Amino acid sequence: MSDARGFGFEVLATDGGSSARRGQLTTPHGVVQTPAFMPVGTVGAMKGVTPAQLTDTGAEIMLCNTYHLALRPKPEVVVALGGLHKFIGWDRPILTDSGGFQVFSLAKINKIDEDGVDFRSHIDGSLIRLSPEIATDIQNKLGADIIMAFDQCPPLPCEPAELAAAVERTVAWAKRCKEAHGREDQALFGIVQGGTDLAMRRMCAERIIEVGFDGYAVGGLSVGESHEEMVEVLDGLCPHLPADRPRYLMGVGMPRDLYEGVRAGIDMFDCVIPTRNGRHGQVFTATGAMKLRNEKHRLDGRPLEEACDCYTCRTYSRAYLRHLFMAGEMLGPMLASIHNLRFLQRLMGRMRDLINAGELATIASEFPVVLGTNGNNDT
Amino acid sequence: MSDARGFGFEVLATDGGSSARRGQLTTPHGVVQTPAFMPVGTVGAMKGVTPAQLTDTGAEIMLCNTYHLALRPKPEVVVALGGLHKFIGWDRPILTDSGGFQVFSLAKINKIDEDGVDFRSHIDGSLIRLSPEIATDIQNKLGADIIMAFDQCPPLPCEPAELAAAVERTVAWAKRCKEAHGREDQALFGIVQGGTDLAMRRMCAERIIEVGFDGYAVGGLSVGESHEEMVEVLDGLCPHLPADRPRYLMGVGMPRDLYEGVRAGIDMFDCVIPTRNGRHGQVFTATGAMKLRNEKHRLDGRPLEEACDCYTCRTYSRAYLRHLFMAGEMLGPMLASIHNLRFLQRLMGRMRDLINAGELATIASEFPVVLGTNGNNDT
Repeated sequence: MSDARGFGFEVLATDGGSSARRGQLTTPHGVVQTPAFMPVGTVGAMKGVTPAQLTDTGAEIMLCNTYHLALRPKPEVVVALGGLHKFIGWDRPILTDSGGFQVFSLAKINKIDEDGVDFRSHIDGSLIRLSPEIATDIQNKLGADIIMAFDQCPPLPCEPAELAAAVERTVAWAKRCKEAHGREDQALFGIVQGGTDLAMRRMCAERIIEVGFDGYAVGGLSVGESHEEMVEVLDGLCPHLPADRPRYLMGVGMPRDLYEGVRAGIDMFDCVIPTRNGRHGQVFTATGAMKLRNEKHRLDGRPLEEACDCYTCRTYSRAYLRHLFMAGEMLGPMLASIHNLRFLQRLMGRMRDLINAGELATIASEFPVVLGTNGNNDT
Repeated sequence: MSDARGFGFEVLATDGGSSARRGQLTTPHGVVQTPAFMPVGTVGAMKGVTPAQLTDTGAEIMLCNTYHLALRPKPEVVVALGGLHKFIGWDRPILTDSGGFQVFSLAKINKIDEDGVDFRSHIDGSLIRLSPEIATDIQNKLGADIIMAFDQCPPLPCEPAELAAAVERTVAWAKRCKEAHGREDQALFGIVQGGTDLAMRRMCAERIIEVGFDGYAVGGLSVGESHEEMVEVLDGLCPHLPADRPRYLMGVGMPRDLYEGVRAGIDMFDCVIPTRNGRHGQVFTATGAMKLRNEKHRLDGRPLEEACDCYTCRTYSRAYLRHLFMAGEMLGPMLASIHNLRFLQRLMGRMRDLINAGELATIASEFPVVLGTNGNNDT
């Protein structure tokens, strides 16, 4: 079900004992089953994974970073090569973030005022400007299916006055993004800031909803607060977000955070963690994280997970993967990333099935890692 | 057509104007069309390429290095995990070299005598010994379809006395390898040394043939001599190798060397060059090498080669590949390696077809690079 522009969102089922929803997001480049995990191809490439391999992991949508693409190769190159989908060889849905998060975490900020931000590129130190209009224009040029409003994302903990100022700016910038947005075939999502202050979050949400967007993102979490604080914000905020629009929790990808997000009613997630951890020889399993360099895997002929259907688990032993990491072979990061990406897709798929059956909480018996400390404990 | 052990070699066709032969090599893990290029998975892994992707490039046999596997993960690990094919996830033919070349090029040699070589591992400096018996035992344990005699490979140029001593040792060691060889399901190839001294080469060949092997390799080339010297050795030596056994030119993979080898009657080749060059952003094309970081590719929407059917060329523009290398993305080396591997397989496949038609020389009009200076000139 989609509108004249090619977009749509339907809630197909809701859970019995939680606020979780099972939905379907339609975009001009295809349909995404929700709750969905979106892998991140920062500069328009998954690190160590081809689009064909990414498709095999079950990913239906990919995220790319406007900040990184704006610095390199620059939007005009992507435009000249036929837009982001064609340039990066991924003809399924793409979401681009606005650059707000990266500007406030990676860049050396030169000047920030009501109009926008001047910062120095982390690549070559050149002076660059992003504003609501510029970030929207770049995203219009890149051509993703879903684009994000340019927001101010403060690190946590944050002084109340600073937080309030970031919220004011985020609301003002959201309006300007909506006005600047020039493509009918791209959905525009607003972002709710407000740190761990629930009243601030609700006030921000109310004003962002008043501007009116195709979907609503929860930004500024997973930036320094505790897991419990994050869960509290999600539980307190989600009921105040429109039920008929997709809800997106930005930058979250650890199993227990995904579970708590889904439970609270979030529909979309993104994170670099599956490929980043994979590159460092750490893989997800249903019972916790596994460090591949560990001596105990030296003669272990078992796959990473018996239950996993990924290329890595179908082909290789833990002993071989350990060997690759000990020898510093590129294939190690590639195979570990494939497993981690598939792991999160299997987890999301199983959560979708369990919401359909009205029993999401069952996921904890199948994937005990969702109750653990972010899957970081070695097994 | 194979013997009771599962091996066989047939010459199916010969060229009109050269000594080239079109053949078929049968092994317990499958058939290899010759002339064949064997990609190298040094430690039991292609750098940046999965076995599934390697299969897609058309590779029918893969080479692994005994020296590297002996140091890490060590043969007993491979044995415990069910042998090399299972360990590395490649169920097609494998050839292992004997470690001779690596010992004399990579390792810090401690002592060399008639019995063998003591050397220090380039990884951790530990003292290790290789001899004909040990190298053969390790290869028996690894379990490749084809294993190689342990030889002494002198760098070129080389003093006549030193060359003669290396030849004597290579012949004596070849006999001991044959005696030590303990597996019926592995073919054993002898290696001919002798540098660029044709009389020495022929004398060595005669004595190695007298020992009797399943195939004959030309070692000690592509180690410092000129292209012309290499061609001269091949033309002068090949007629003295048995016509009914496969001939293998070790360590050669540049397009013009492959062509000259095929023309002289060589059936098998191996080299790390397609993945090594790929990792460094240099790709083969029919007209010469291309450097992907070059500014001129910035807005170039064409694939690396219009005629290429590899995953990279079917999916990506030169501009995107340049972007990946400029951004230092892993996907760049992966995609460039896939193209280079497929390029050499397409070149070999086309040479096989042209031998069938009796007109190998035509290859120069389709792949002018075979007449160039090793494909290193940028286009």
